[in-house]
Amino acid sequence: MGLECNSKPKIVTGEYGYILEDVPHLSDYIPNLPVHSNPLQDNPAYSAVRQYFIHVDDSVPQKVVVHKDSPRGVHFRRAGPREKVYFESEDVHACIVTCGGLCPGLNTVIREIVCGLHHMYGVNRVIGINGGYRGFYSKNTVSLTPNSVNDIHKRGGTILGTSRGGHDTKKIVDSIEDRGINQVYIIGGDGTQKGAAVIFEEIKRRGLKVAVAGIPKTIDNDIPVIDKSFGFDSAVEEAERAINAAHVEATSIENGIGFVKLMGRYCGFIAMYATLASRDVDCCLIPESPFYLEGAGGLFEYIEKRLKEQGHMVIVMAEGAGQELLSEEFRTANQHDASGNKLLDDVGLWISRRIKDHFSKKRKIAINLKYIDPTYMIRAIPSNASDNVYCTLLAQSAVHGAMAGFTGFTVGLVNGRQTYIPFYRINELRNKVIITDRMWARLLSSTNQPSFLSRKQATEVDKKEHPDTQLLDDSFADGEAVTKDITC
Amino acid sequence: MGLECNSKPKIVTGEYGYILEDVPHLSDYIPNLPVHSNPLQDNPAYSAVRQYFIHVDDSVPQKVVVHKDSPRGVHFRRAGPREKVYFESEDVHACIVTCGGLCPGLNTVIREIVCGLHHMYGVNRVIGINGGYRGFYSKNTVSLTPNSVNDIHKRGGTILGTSRGGHDTKKIVDSIEDRGINQVYIIGGDGTQKGAAVIFEEIKRRGLKVAVAGIPKTIDNDIPVIDKSFGFDSAVEEAERAINAAHVEATSIENGIGFVKLMGRYCGFIAMYATLASRDVDCCLIPESPFYLEGAGGLFEYIEKRLKEQGHMVIVMAEGAGQELLSEEFRTANQHDASGNKLLDDVGLWISRRIKDHFSKKRKIAINLKYIDPTYMIRAIPSNASDNVYCTLLAQSAVHGAMAGFTGFTVGLVNGRQTYIPFYRINELRNKVIITDRMWARLLSSTNQPSFLSRKQATEVDKKEHPDTQLLDDSFADGEAVTKDITC
Amino acid sequence: MGLECNSKPKIVTGEYGYILEDVPHLSDYIPNLPVHSNPLQDNPAYSAVRQYFIHVDDSVPQKVVVHKDSPRGVHFRRAGPREKVYFESEDVHACIVTCGGLCPGLNTVIREIVCGLHHMYGVNRVIGINGGYRGFYSKNTVSLTPNSVNDIHKRGGTILGTSRGGHDTKKIVDSIEDRGINQVYIIGGDGTQKGAAVIFEEIKRRGLKVAVAGIPKTIDNDIPVIDKSFGFDSAVEEAERAINAAHVEATSIENGIGFVKLMGRYCGFIAMYATLASRDVDCCLIPESPFYLEGAGGLFEYIEKRLKEQGHMVIVMAEGAGQELLSEEFRTANQHDASGNKLLDDVGLWISRRIKDHFSKKRKIAINLKYIDPTYMIRAIPSNASDNVYCTLLAQSAVHGAMAGFTGFTVGLVNGRQTYIPFYRINELRNKVIITDRMWARLLSSTNQPSFLSRKQATEVDKKEHPDTQLLDDSFADGEAVTKDITC
Amino acid sequence: MGLECNSKPKIVTGEYGYILEDVPHLSDYIPNLPVHSNPLQDNPAYSAVRQYFIHVDDSVPQKVVVHKDSPRGVHFRRAGPREKVYFESEDVHACIVTCGGLCPGLNTVIREIVCGLHHMYGVNRVIGINGGYRGFYSKNTVSLTPNSVNDIHKRGGTILGTSRGGHDTKKIVDSIEDRGINQVYIIGGDGTQKGAAVIFEEIKRRGLKVAVAGIPKTIDNDIPVIDKSFGFDSAVEEAERAINAAHVEATSIENGIGFVKLMGRYCGFIAMYATLASRDVDCCLIPESPFYLEGAGGLFEYIEKRLKEQGHMVIVMAEGAGQELLSEEFRTANQHDASGNKLLDDVGLWISRRIKDHFSKKRKIAINLKYIDPTYMIRAIPSNASDNVYCTLLAQSAVHGAMAGFTGFTVGLVNGRQTYIPFYRINELRNKVIITDRMWARLLSSTNQPSFLSRKQATEVDKKEHPDTQLLDDSFADGEAVTKDITC
Repeated sequence: MGLECNSKPKIVTGEYGYILEDVPHLSDYIPNLPVHSNPLQDNPAYSAVRQYFIHVDDSVPQKVVVHKDSPRGVHFRRAGPREKVYFESEDVHACIVTCGGLCPGLNTVIREIVCGLHHMYGVNRVIGINGGYRGFYSKNTVSLTPNSVNDIHKRGGTILGTSRGGHDTKKIVDSIEDRGINQVYIIGGDGTQKGAAVIFEEIKRRGLKVAVAGIPKTIDNDIPVIDKSFGFDSAVEEAERAINAAHVEATSIENGIGFVKLMGRYCGFIAMYATLASRDVDCCLIPESPFYLEGAGGLFEYIEKRLKEQGHMVIVMAEGAGQELLSEEFRTANQHDASGNKLLDDVGLWISRRIKDHFSKKRKIAINLKYIDPTYMIRAIPSNASDNVYCTLLAQSAVHGAMAGFTGFTVGLVNGRQTYIPFYRINELRNKVIITDRMWARLLSSTNQPSFLSRKQATEVDKKEHPDTQLLDDSFADGEAVTKDITC
Repeated sequence: MGLECNSKPKIVTGEYGYILEDVPHLSDYIPNLPVHSNPLQDNPAYSAVRQYFIHVDDSVPQKVVVHKDSPRGVHFRRAGPREKVYFESEDVHACIVTCGGLCPGLNTVIREIVCGLHHMYGVNRVIGINGGYRGFYSKNTVSLTPNSVNDIHKRGGTILGTSRGGHDTKKIVDSIEDRGINQVYIIGGDGTQKGAAVIFEEIKRRGLKVAVAGIPKTIDNDIPVIDKSFGFDSAVEEAERAINAAHVEATSIENGIGFVKLMGRYCGFIAMYATLASRDVDCCLIPESPFYLEGAGGLFEYIEKRLKEQGHMVIVMAEGAGQELLSEEFRTANQHDASGNKLLDDVGLWISRRIKDHFSKKRKIAINLKYIDPTYMIRAIPSNASDNVYCTLLAQSAVHGAMAGFTGFTVGLVNGRQTYIPFYRINELRNKVIITDRMWARLLSSTNQPSFLSRKQATEVDKKEHPDTQLLDDSFADGEAVTKDITC
Repeated sequence: MGLECNSKPKIVTGEYGYILEDVPHLSDYIPNLPVHSNPLQDNPAYSAVRQYFIHVDDSVPQKVVVHKDSPRGVHFRRAGPREKVYFESEDVHACIVTCGGLCPGLNTVIREIVCGLHHMYGVNRVIGINGGYRGFYSKNTVSLTPNSVNDIHKRGGTILGTSRGGHDTKKIVDSIEDRGINQVYIIGGDGTQKGAAVIFEEIKRRGLKVAVAGIPKTIDNDIPVIDKSFGFDSAVEEAERAINAAHVEATSIENGIGFVKLMGRYCGFIAMYATLASRDVDCCLIPESPFYLEGAGGLFEYIEKRLKEQGHMVIVMAEGAGQELLSEEFRTANQHDASGNKLLDDVGLWISRRIKDHFSKKRKIAINLKYIDPTYMIRAIPSNASDNVYCTLLAQSAVHGAMAGFTGFTVGLVNGRQTYIPFYRINELRNKVIITDRMWARLLSSTNQPSFLSRKQATEVDKKEHPDTQLLDDSFADGEAVTKDITC
Repeated sequence: MGLECNSKPKIVTGEYGYILEDVPHLSDYIPNLPVHSNPLQDNPAYSAVRQYFIHVDDSVPQKVVVHKDSPRGVHFRRAGPREKVYFESEDVHACIVTCGGLCPGLNTVIREIVCGLHHMYGVNRVIGINGGYRGFYSKNTVSLTPNSVNDIHKRGGTILGTSRGGHDTKKIVDSIEDRGINQVYIIGGDGTQKGAAVIFEEIKRRGLKVAVAGIPKTIDNDIPVIDKSFGFDSAVEEAERAINAAHVEATSIENGIGFVKLMGRYCGFIAMYATLASRDVDCCLIPESPFYLEGAGGLFEYIEKRLKEQGHMVIVMAEGAGQELLSEEFRTANQHDASGNKLLDDVGLWISRRIKDHFSKKRKIAINLKYIDPTYMIRAIPSNASDNVYCTLLAQSAVHGAMAGFTGFTVGLVNGRQTYIPFYRINELRNKVIITDRMWARLLSSTNQPSFLSRKQATEVDKKEHPDTQLLDDSFADGEAVTKDITC
């Protein structure tokens, strides 16, 4: 792939253990860049604002649970408009690209980048790259104006289209250079942001005056550092509808089991929050918490107990849960059945079949399992009101950052404040539910499900992934980053 | 009313400007209280949790926009379970009361206090006080069990009923004492929390071992210090529906004006966020931003301009906006019309009539104004998914705090963390939209409405209310507290 | 207005009392019109249809509750495609106009006329008249294509804009003639359809080959003959949300009264059906059922009784209810207060104030009345699924009729079948809730409200309006037409 | 099963070809039954009703598309209260049972039977049979009162629980006799109503004074004679949401295919109406319309064409579509893979995999297919407003019928009127979409999909199933009954 990056972190230190992990700036590698007054000063909307420019020293701490004698720790640069900008409005030629799976709010982010550039900075040249990274190689782009994006936030999906992969750094940067684009806004997840990092490196290598800003997107909420990803609230809200349906189905029939598969390939945030929001769930299975089916303390035993107690139950499962389980079974199955591969793609279906088989064959208990997979109904909804506001702030922060000459950064909400975060902080880790932390304990307490593992095991599972965590936070968007296997 | 309080703030200081504004504790005024191990240790759900007890020194800073050399400032005590509790589960007799207007999430908070006490601490005696403070004087209370509250979070309103006022400190504390209640959970707004503060004072005066915990409720989001109040997201989401309707009405007819009145007697948060979420609004009027109707730069002029430009417009108005305007007019009106009082109760109706009159009589322009007041449809909805999770955390934080012997506190989310906040910090101020800050500028930029005042005026308006603000925050729930006229 | 019409009904009679009230046809007044094969025969979608043309004799009875010896009665011509059409596709130049208040489904009807003409008949020239009848005088029209209307059914309102009044027959027909329009689709209520009738008369007088088709629109469901008007189901569904909110508000406070004003100037269908759908309503007031406030058997007495029994109540009121009451009061009020006029516009507000005054002043009972007026939120929603299908059939029926040369008709669902109805049958009467029929009794039985009148009075009220009803129907869309004061 | 029935149809004939297919009555087999005045006469809610009793001769024609000389044909008895009843209120002991799959509106029907019996007839003894037919053998039943069912219409599912099968006529009638039940309300589909017919026969054979009333339930709308089944509108509305999601997914990615599987094992009504309501569907596959995958005119070819034209498409498929296709494939597959059986249960999944394989392997075209199965989310929703009203009327009609001594009937809406239909008319046929009729042509016209068969083939397919259809109706709930293989 050629995804390599060599930029060194920009670290600023201060008194009492203060560390600022700063983001790159065009002036880092282009000398003598002219600066201009921020046109916001002349914007009537901002005429009454007392302090409309972010102080050059404003920063936001990564950790906000502190002791009276704890050092101040890592901070990020606060996002927002600066007194001086590095682009003249008429010179700006921006492009926007969306990559990866759908997520509520994509269209709002697109809309607000366009409107932000236009209304706040008077920028008129913004184009949309169609269909993800590979759209850079296509001749066609779409012109984006405040008028053309006026209503798009009311629709799900992305008007630009999206795709996975298709990243060829050289060709993309060639395309950027050829088209004369000098601000690149990249909306996408994990892999996309890594791609953005490499694009930034290549642009820097070529010495181009092009700002690269990432807006991290993941419906799974697995991006580290930031409070939560846009679209997450909307997704949880829609997931709750599926759980309600499962609850109705389960309670309307003897030994009814409502089984809901939710998104979450590597992390169980949607499953966990939808479970906490709904309160109708008896068992929540997530990738972070290993479980087993058979035997004492296993899932089958718990299901049987629950059905005996209340006659019905609801199981919520993140798509990535029980993968280890599946692989073992798969190895066995593989010997017999070459087409097993397809069948096993969907772990939810596989486990629900195992449950049916167990009870019908082994236990001779008639159960009624209803399987609900609302994945695409969740991804495709328009963002709700709070996500709309959140997307607006993210988009505007990205615009302010690019105009101010920052580059190689992603915008993110950190402890409720908009910040600029260097790419490597987003890309080196993945956010996960910490099963030894209190939010997961809250869930266990609300579902009454077994933890499927002893405390010792839990600690081991956890240790493996959090070797150096010192202070666990009880955050609203509770979670913790774990090391990912990356090259950049 | 007798609302007086004399407790002194508990202040702890640390290095580098660290200040902790701590909350009272039963042991502050009752010596030699026995302590017990927290039963959570034996709860299977928490068996795998590594660090389930909050460190005694955990605190959360009030300000998170910092400079590398800025002092550490005010902190609040982090909420959560403590290693030692001051109540034995079988001794706990808790009561819950809801006061003031409806707000999405009330039932979820009630449910989670009951379930939290039961599932986490094994507490079985919880009663509900009916119909607000005055329910304390009534003989009837309702027993609350996990079973009886199981489905209430799916309904709007409060199952306990509510009322305004009715606060008689002595009688309430008599009732608490007579019933043998030792944990009091008070869910309510501004006035209610002041009442809670006085109840706490009286309980302390009598030396009773009774923990008093407040859960602040305000659909207007006007409570200071905390990030946002529960139910606010749900309210904004529903408000957006009304704005959509106004937009459809306005665009379907020549010179159509959709006029939406939203909640917000003293602050315009719902109006501002619904406007930002919807993007269909051309003018947003809030109490914090003075405006005038006639003349150059006035509302009428702007409406006429907007109708000329695009043929239709949407106006959103917080109910408290333009009150000064109203009083002036009212004084005039009063001379002629004794029944004006009733009519003028609703400023939205009054202004929309003024607009109609202006255009039909003065300007001879036929306009079509549609007035929408969704207030009670907003208040009465069930909380959405994110508010459900938020309410759960608030309720559990309150329960952990009371069990740990803290009292005279309110729970609140500060920079994304659950904290305990002394009553006086909640009660001495009121949160307001700062019209000289960037969030309001964002709104102006999205609506293109005039600011209705010069920068000098704005600063004056603002100065009057924020005499000592040093560092304006660009927060997600952007706002700032202003001094209120209170005795406690 | 010059709304006069002189066409005689076209009546066909048959055996056993069969009567067909037929609609006009272009050939009635233009001799020797050429006929063409219906292009639907070559449409691949219809290639497998066995009987795609309506039999020339197909008709639908108006009454379907019959006795074994009852005469067959009035029938209407069944709608649908005919074997022969009177327009060649390339010659068709159609226009669409929407008039009157908003109603869910307007955009769907517009879309399906455009798509029906295009997909079924290959018609490419369709224009939209902007802003109601008066748009005929304007130079600007909008070209409507399947592409331009593709998504409009997902939005509320009307993309064409609408207005009230503005009807000048001569100028409209001049405009039709000047533009070379030969199919006119008029979507609108009561007055609009009367206007359509006169336009048809004028066109006929001039001998123009122009088909005039009406699609009756009324959110109130007050159009006679037809089963129900489009958008009605959507409106009732949305009204139920307001009632839910009122119920939550009422039950959350002592002596809580939720008061919901719904649409229905002359008839109470929305109020009645929303009440029946919701089951949370304690009192439903409609224009057809007189009531009084004071004294024995009055509204105040019932409210007091209900509050005593259950502590709360929900009142639903159609906007036209109690108008007589209002006029009396108004006369009194008028003497004192010149501005009363405005205030009294809204009867709902007026009555709710009367209720408040009665209890606070006369009865010294503290009540908590919450007033909800969801009118514009109801009108502006997009149509729900069943209304979408219904609108599609109406639009296609209109298209088939015009292509087949029928004119001066309105389309309507009669006993579940699409029919063509002569204008005079729609215009001479207005549909009303029959308060001596069983549907209203059902409502009374579900609310337990008093009937506010004796049987004798009821019969009188009813007799006055239904002098000749012989057989009362227990229909799904229960109602009956009453004579209106019309000239055409 | 012992499902046999021997009752002869009760046929009444009249002039001009009038036929009444009447329902059984208790007095048919029990002589000298005492009759009583209908207590409705004393019900204050009905005091003003002029004609509250259904005329003894009221009937409703099955066909309403008539010619001026066509014979009058089959009629059904109109439902509603009778002047005389055959039960005294205090003697009534009613039971309600729900069987089969979930359907929106079940709880509303239960509620309104209970409330109808109580409020209209003063009946206080109503019990619910738990979990379908087999609940008759259980000791436990649940007492149903207006209070206990007050809010259940706001929830999906059935509070009584349901199950499939479990029908043992003798044991059920023994249970009815032992408990002293004299009114049996049976809510369920196809098989359930057949069971009800046999229960009625056995009751008649034993000479018991027990009225048996069926309320037909089928989310698929496949019950013959009646206009549409309750819950159908709600189901279509929810199905439209899934189609919207599929549309968003499809349009957001290159060669995106949104594939929605909907309910409809034997008929495609939900798929057809959801397609017509949504207008976003490019292909609708139903059991009634055979299709094939490969070759000219096949599904694959159409998909490729569509993707080439517009880059994306939405396919809606009823679960029973393409079963023949599946069996063939299955035979082949069966030879290789013993576990294929499970996999093939879901035709939608199977076909979507075939599509993926075809394009990836044969055509080397990258497509992005998103599979959505909203089945259980649809079934579990509460009924919408129009279904609520509909369910109310059905329930009340059943109550009026049973009180009036009718038995062995099912209630149903026929041409917009409530009627009593003899069981055999419901049970001998199954409603199907007629693919040679205009509603299906409408759909084809809106989707532009191929008909997949020549006109000759279509006629053959159709002839096979409609040997005797003479007059095809263009009904709102368009469809036609086909002979089913039944013994009763």
